[in-house]
Amino acid sequence: MSAIQKNVEASSEKYSTSFTKGDLALPPAKKYLVLTCMDARIDPAAAFGIELGDAHVIRNAGASAVDALRSIVISEQLLGTTEIVLVKHTGCGMLTFKNEDAYAAVEKSLGAEAVQELHAKHLDFLPFPQLEKAVEDDVEFLKASKLVPDSFAISGWVYEVETGKTRRVV
Amino acid sequence: MSAIQKNVEASSEKYSTSFTKGDLALPPAKKYLVLTCMDARIDPAAAFGIELGDAHVIRNAGASAVDALRSIVISEQLLGTTEIVLVKHTGCGMLTFKNEDAYAAVEKSLGAEAVQELHAKHLDFLPFPQLEKAVEDDVEFLKASKLVPDSFAISGWVYEVETGKTRRVV
Repeated sequence: MSAIQKNVEASSEKYSTSFTKGDLALPPAKKYLVLTCMDARIDPAAAFGIELGDAHVIRNAGASAVDALRSIVISEQLLGTTEIVLVKHTGCGMLTFKNEDAYAAVEKSLGAEAVQELHAKHLDFLPFPQLEKAVEDDVEFLKASKLVPDSFAISGWVYEVETGKTRRVV
Repeated sequence: MSAIQKNVEASSEKYSTSFTKGDLALPPAKKYLVLTCMDARIDPAAAFGIELGDAHVIRNAGASAVDALRSIVISEQLLGTTEIVLVKHTGCGMLTFKNEDAYAAVEKSLGAEAVQELHAKHLDFLPFPQLEKAVEDDVEFLKASKLVPDSFAISGWVYEVETGKTRRVV
């Protein structure tokens, strides 16, 4: 067992011993979803004030709305959410590369077969060159999608990894 | 401003006031990533023992490895992670429907144009009928993928929303 796997077991033992929220319902109590980045420096529950059971939390590289669409449709259509809080962040890795850089990195470290798998899956890494613009673009994408009801409240934010602050963009 | 947006602002004010982790590096300090479900009843940091800055956290509907592949490749190739902890959970919404149910729900509430968008995007909602089997299948998918190095440690777990416990499956 790796050190990380041991840490999961020890943390679970500690967490479950004082766990008292075993009767929460499946649908989010406050009917919203948060979409943010997978970045290690973000703790959505603490930074954005999400109580256990209140909201779906979707996380991927760059907080991409395009990538999250499957999960968003399930959240709204099958589990009753009606609002989206989208949060990208300063210092995001997605600001630092282009698709061709990622393809080159894969080819160098994993070889030609891996690159073929990228092409076969039409994999777009969805990097973005400008942070605020990317927040605006993703909110626009969600507002324009037929798969998100017009009645949805959708807000876009930036979390500052340097200060712990979350500020509204749109 | 909605009540949820006000809560983000108030929570951010409180969080940032006592924030002391503004100098964490972009790559995860412990070089691992956690892939889990967007379910509102999961707090990965607390339940799985993730300290701020230590790990990427990817979350989507059902903790799908297929859906997470873009983020996983970025995590490993550009940000140096070498281990995956995959956690699905009891009572998952993905156990309760099939693709055709989701397509029907979209058609009923959003109309024919929305269903056309689903078809145009070839959207597979990736539900699964059996929990442990789904954990095993996703770990197998990652191990078989040319896009995940053979050297990766990959473990599969189930989080119990009833008890707060996380148990190893594979």
